[in-house]
Amino acid sequence: MRETAANSWEAKAEEFSLYGFTDLPSVHERGTVVLTHGEGPYIFDTHGRRYLDANSGLWNMVAGFDHPGLIEAAQKQYARFPGYHAFFGRMSDQTVLLSEKLVEVSPFERGRVFYTNSGSEANDTMVKILWFLHGAEGKPQRRKILTRWNGYHGVTAVSASMTGKPYNSVFGLPLPGFIHLGCPHYWRFGQAGETEEQFTARLAAELEATIIKEGPDTIAGFFAEPVMGAGGVIPPSKGYFQAVAPILKKYGIPLIADEVICGFGRTGNTWGSQTYDFMPDAIISSKNMTAGFFPMGAVILGPELADRVQAASEAIEEFPHGFTASGHPVGCAIALKAIDVVMNEGLADNVNRLSPRLEAGLAEIAKNPNIGELRGVGFMWALEAVKDKATKTPFDGSLSVSERIANTCTDLGLICRPLGQSIVLCPPFILTEPQMDEMFEKLEAALKKVFAEVA
Amino acid sequence: MRETAANSWEAKAEEFSLYGFTDLPSVHERGTVVLTHGEGPYIFDTHGRRYLDANSGLWNMVAGFDHPGLIEAAQKQYARFPGYHAFFGRMSDQTVLLSEKLVEVSPFERGRVFYTNSGSEANDTMVKILWFLHGAEGKPQRRKILTRWNGYHGVTAVSASMTGKPYNSVFGLPLPGFIHLGCPHYWRFGQAGETEEQFTARLAAELEATIIKEGPDTIAGFFAEPVMGAGGVIPPSKGYFQAVAPILKKYGIPLIADEVICGFGRTGNTWGSQTYDFMPDAIISSKNMTAGFFPMGAVILGPELADRVQAASEAIEEFPHGFTASGHPVGCAIALKAIDVVMNEGLADNVNRLSPRLEAGLAEIAKNPNIGELRGVGFMWALEAVKDKATKTPFDGSLSVSERIANTCTDLGLICRPLGQSIVLCPPFILTEPQMDEMFEKLEAALKKVFAEVA
Repeated sequence: MRETAANSWEAKAEEFSLYGFTDLPSVHERGTVVLTHGEGPYIFDTHGRRYLDANSGLWNMVAGFDHPGLIEAAQKQYARFPGYHAFFGRMSDQTVLLSEKLVEVSPFERGRVFYTNSGSEANDTMVKILWFLHGAEGKPQRRKILTRWNGYHGVTAVSASMTGKPYNSVFGLPLPGFIHLGCPHYWRFGQAGETEEQFTARLAAELEATIIKEGPDTIAGFFAEPVMGAGGVIPPSKGYFQAVAPILKKYGIPLIADEVICGFGRTGNTWGSQTYDFMPDAIISSKNMTAGFFPMGAVILGPELADRVQAASEAIEEFPHGFTASGHPVGCAIALKAIDVVMNEGLADNVNRLSPRLEAGLAEIAKNPNIGELRGVGFMWALEAVKDKATKTPFDGSLSVSERIANTCTDLGLICRPLGQSIVLCPPFILTEPQMDEMFEKLEAALKKVFAEVA
Repeated sequence: MRETAANSWEAKAEEFSLYGFTDLPSVHERGTVVLTHGEGPYIFDTHGRRYLDANSGLWNMVAGFDHPGLIEAAQKQYARFPGYHAFFGRMSDQTVLLSEKLVEVSPFERGRVFYTNSGSEANDTMVKILWFLHGAEGKPQRRKILTRWNGYHGVTAVSASMTGKPYNSVFGLPLPGFIHLGCPHYWRFGQAGETEEQFTARLAAELEATIIKEGPDTIAGFFAEPVMGAGGVIPPSKGYFQAVAPILKKYGIPLIADEVICGFGRTGNTWGSQTYDFMPDAIISSKNMTAGFFPMGAVILGPELADRVQAASEAIEEFPHGFTASGHPVGCAIALKAIDVVMNEGLADNVNRLSPRLEAGLAEIAKNPNIGELRGVGFMWALEAVKDKATKTPFDGSLSVSERIANTCTDLGLICRPLGQSIVLCPPFILTEPQMDEMFEKLEAALKKVFAEVA
């Protein structure tokens, strides 16, 4: 156990914080990393230590930690109009401009935007929109929500219920009516002798069987991340969305793409649904939308849902929902700039230019006998640790292999994220080749050290 | 119906927005008010029209719309460290400082802070914390949440379930297990011949009867705003919290003060629970905490809950909950400044100095025969319109009296909020005497005009 001065940053952090998503034994042993500032993809702590953040903050700081154009956009809007809401038929000019822009860059010809402060609130809002819509259309029993195991959709009680992670049992979640389908991870869940195409067909059949068993008229919608993010970077199995989309259409079940992580460039296109070639009925956006500079989420309804939800709202003269900071002028001004920075100032290009180099470098590292799988796309990748590569046997959970790798990386000045037994790499879009090499070197050194200890 | 150029701000706003909490017929008839900037308590629209915002945005812009100290705090932190999270044992220095400050200014001797992006998320988080805690302590059946009719706690599916408003039925809410007790509004709900003390005793008896009927061991917590805000500014009846607190204590039910509106000065003290002299087990904060300059909420756990929740987290090595922007460094830097501005730079003093003048001016207006009640405290007041003052008979709902008053005020350059049949006045804390007089004059003119039309 480390020594900590009573008035140190670390002691204060522990005294006054309820930590979330934090391995508490690690904090007690290693101390909290208290951060002061950033430079490009690097962050600095109170001891002056520098870390390359290959986690982009939480997927979101895609333009790094000191992007001058984004800082200027934020500063200018604070000087101009530092806060307002979007209730009662009033909203800021920035809000109007961003809604127009979001529909323009969406895959939809037309659409309507609703703002929230997070991806959690956007998914929770989308569930409320579906419940509202089905009720207004005379089908109030259409309330069940379909998602997938390992899908991550947030932490409000409802969005946590959508999230297919075992840890939610400590809250007594999921709530009733939230149904988790199979995870489209062929390497881990494909059966002996099953081809990837057969695996996809099996998941599609499971979807249809579930719809029939539950009753098509009890289901409100199906939510999916194009690539599962916090589930451990899981791209869909081959043909997955092409197989499930027609089944959903057949039963009139809206397909919602949760693009909180994939949206705005992470997979190499503006939307993950473009990368995997399917057309959702609505999009959930957050994170990259403001490059992490402001808490903001959005529901973008495609033309059909926009028309139906608007009609349902007109019928009762009001859609009775909204957050105080929905459409905050500063968030909207930042998002307008962030979308421009990602799409038009070289960040998306950099992802496309360097993602083959990123994949190749990680493939080299994945030759390690204790790496079972390298998976990903664009600038989101995971290396899964295994005790035995041939049998895909994981390490004993008590060894906390991925936490040890991440902690060793931190000691070397590299931030990456342990997820299950995987290590996730999702660097900022501004990453340069030398910074990528630094990431490879530190990661490889950490893997070597930890696998020597546990293997 | 107004004429609108296809490319006008108003047309764009309607084309791309799903409006929340907005009377849609009013928008279609009058057009959206698209706002560009602010000065002190005034806001300006794209046509150069100026409005005195007696709604403080949404209760939250308490320092007005161009406070130089807050703008500077935001701009400086954007230049220093424009974004980070608080997961994995890392957080920004601003986050550490704010948690220390929040516990310091709280009514608690010790405590722990958890950040969210809104009051909705903070209430939703508090429910999850209670479910987690009771589960960890071997009482997983303690899940029911007690709130009150007209209480407002947010719009996530769970915080909307806590909210005691009839409009939530369009979403099929509340979810099961959310129980709404009587609203402590003596003027409206007191029975013939019942004194205010008897009314309070009746509500306390209802609480205890409900606890017994439901089973004390099925109840997770009781949430209450010290003064109901969006319910229509309803201060508690005399002795209310002194009557309910011991009953909750007797059955081991935590008392959570939702201070989203009351907190940081609105009632004349730092906390509404101080104004009404009770000690909660935890506080929900948002809005004024950043003076509306940033989306942020917080759960502040008092000593007992902090210790119990921390113990439950240590037992499973992690509290598996958190939002991407929880503890955002810019939000924390702004909140540190906003708390200082409100408490130490004359804003709280101004509320205390001018609230008697505000009350007196509104009392004068309330002599109008169509104002049934003036109620409020500090800088939060409501005037309730009635058709008949003696019998407290409301106007016919189809007359939309409060919407007409609010729209007439808007035409006169004053923003106030219609809530049920009430008009809510909750001006920014920087309001001057001449600005208060402007508010009185415009409000009185609007009331005169509308009551002449409908009475």
